[in-house]
Amino acid sequence: MGLEVGGQVLVTEAELTGFCTTVLEKLKVPPHEAGRIARNLIEADLRGVGSHGVVRFPIYVQRIEDGGSNPAPQVSLARETRTTAVMDGDNGMGQIVGEYAMELAIEKARDGDCAFVSVRNSNHYGAAAYYVEMAARHDMIGLSFTIGGINHMTPWGGAEAMLGNNPFAIAFPTDRDFPVVLDMACSVAARGKIIVAAKDGTPIPGDWASDANGVPTTDAVEALKGFVLPIAGPKGYALTMTVGLLSSMLSGAAFGSEVTHMYEQTTTPQNVGHLFGVLPISSFEDVDIFKQRMGKAIEEMHGARRATGVDRIYVPGEREHLSLLSRRSSGIPLSMAVFAELKEVAERYQVNLEGAGYKEIAAQ
Amino acid sequence: MGLEVGGQVLVTEAELTGFCTTVLEKLKVPPHEAGRIARNLIEADLRGVGSHGVVRFPIYVQRIEDGGSNPAPQVSLARETRTTAVMDGDNGMGQIVGEYAMELAIEKARDGDCAFVSVRNSNHYGAAAYYVEMAARHDMIGLSFTIGGINHMTPWGGAEAMLGNNPFAIAFPTDRDFPVVLDMACSVAARGKIIVAAKDGTPIPGDWASDANGVPTTDAVEALKGFVLPIAGPKGYALTMTVGLLSSMLSGAAFGSEVTHMYEQTTTPQNVGHLFGVLPISSFEDVDIFKQRMGKAIEEMHGARRATGVDRIYVPGEREHLSLLSRRSSGIPLSMAVFAELKEVAERYQVNLEGAGYKEIAAQ
Repeated sequence: MGLEVGGQVLVTEAELTGFCTTVLEKLKVPPHEAGRIARNLIEADLRGVGSHGVVRFPIYVQRIEDGGSNPAPQVSLARETRTTAVMDGDNGMGQIVGEYAMELAIEKARDGDCAFVSVRNSNHYGAAAYYVEMAARHDMIGLSFTIGGINHMTPWGGAEAMLGNNPFAIAFPTDRDFPVVLDMACSVAARGKIIVAAKDGTPIPGDWASDANGVPTTDAVEALKGFVLPIAGPKGYALTMTVGLLSSMLSGAAFGSEVTHMYEQTTTPQNVGHLFGVLPISSFEDVDIFKQRMGKAIEEMHGARRATGVDRIYVPGEREHLSLLSRRSSGIPLSMAVFAELKEVAERYQVNLEGAGYKEIAAQ
Repeated sequence: MGLEVGGQVLVTEAELTGFCTTVLEKLKVPPHEAGRIARNLIEADLRGVGSHGVVRFPIYVQRIEDGGSNPAPQVSLARETRTTAVMDGDNGMGQIVGEYAMELAIEKARDGDCAFVSVRNSNHYGAAAYYVEMAARHDMIGLSFTIGGINHMTPWGGAEAMLGNNPFAIAFPTDRDFPVVLDMACSVAARGKIIVAAKDGTPIPGDWASDANGVPTTDAVEALKGFVLPIAGPKGYALTMTVGLLSSMLSGAAFGSEVTHMYEQTTTPQNVGHLFGVLPISSFEDVDIFKQRMGKAIEEMHGARRATGVDRIYVPGEREHLSLLSRRSSGIPLSMAVFAELKEVAERYQVNLEGAGYKEIAAQ
């Protein structure tokens, strides 16, 4: 193939979606659900959130192969009221279970109630933004919380991994062609960045990680023996614990020492928990007025006096929307490392990835 | 009185509550509501959250005097469904309006629904934790969001204050004698700390503030001409904007350029917005099991291996609970500066503060 290390491969949305869907179907994922999982993953890549896109596909495949995740779950409700539910995901892929759960929350809110659905026995659900954007398309504020699939964080003052880098997302409908979307996790830096620094032999900033004794370090190798640090010290610890509790305690999903390692324990169901919530705008405010006020808020941020050297101010979720528009037309750039892993999957399942029309692009 | 500068005055909960209640009654706040406001403020002081305790009392008094806040509001509902409401606070004190709104949310959730109440035409409501702890006492997860009373933050990349340091809180019932409570705002440091550094002529950490051109600075004097920085850079910007949108957009409360200055525009109603939400545990999980699992989570954090030099690990809200127990019995220490401001209020309204039994304690 002759692609340079450090270069990228450009793939179209359609090619990548077709590839992932076909592999999942070979793993006995029902066709409709295979398509949903692929769309969810590839939307993250389109939005420039590569950390939650097809980079996760090989481990998802591995977990299904090893029995850690169920390719064809029978999702059921363990409890239900008019405005709440507890969903049991039957160890299905998080993308499947999560989409059903958010659909249920939206359905329960159709007559103007707020609604929350708690989920257990699910798996890693990809980008939290995906679910809250579903709600925004129904003129609802959407909220989504989940447990990270690995404990890499300590309680504040600790030297033992008890918490994940738990992400959450909140979306607001607007009168623009994109919603305002917060989607964040609670560590300063992803562990992947520390792995890269350790490989390169470069130091890391002092607020990224602590060593095995819980002492902050700039040595990436020592950091890999230790823990990622939360944003803003004890605030970030409190926030990641809160997101974890919201995601797990209402449904009996795993928390703390119950959380297994997504990558290292591929034969063990993870009992991942999520919480989805929706607030239908129309119960509080005229939808048009709400959206116009959101539009005004966006304009105010865009129009604020800019700091020295800054060309443009964005609102949360806007960069991701612009990336999606751009990549839908020009393609999704994948790193050589990610592409190589997908190629391995392609060969294992005899699905054609090479013929999908990708092309080399220059090394960056 | 002979109290040393830099020293502290020790006051009892009862003395301070009596003082604040009496002053508020002289300002035409109905007695029942005056007591509620005092209790709310002094609970923050008891919990060691001095930034939201009686330090705010002089500005609250000033705003009522100047017509910026309404001492005797007629709180009403602008919209209502089974599980949602929009409350108009009639420009009442945030502590009054906030408590009514959270009570309404709890009432709406009594039969097992989740419920959210959005509020407009309110004022600064003190510590966000106060309201979510109300929900926790009813075996509900409580959520509370509000707008800060001053814009001190820019959109990321900006050099114009468009956002407040917007706080939010979430509480969980437990089987212990305290709930787990997250209560945080979105800046790295309070502006008050920068004011102190500027007075002392000491530099500030590089992530606390930017100068008038939006460039991060360690010069406290330049920082006072500029802006406070959000936690974790663009994440904190997205978070404070999200909390602000949740607090204002559902009810038509002030956001962005509509936010006036709590301290400098004391004759202008602020139209502060809040959002309160409750999730009743019993709709999702057996309450006892939920609380036991919370207790187990607390124990796991407490029992985690400790970092070098750390004596004890706390869970969110635990330090505040311990402070409350301690200060209930031994008294609330107030700085000389805060006490002097309360003395001014005491003299203006001819309410006896000195006779309330406070005593000098040694300078720290």
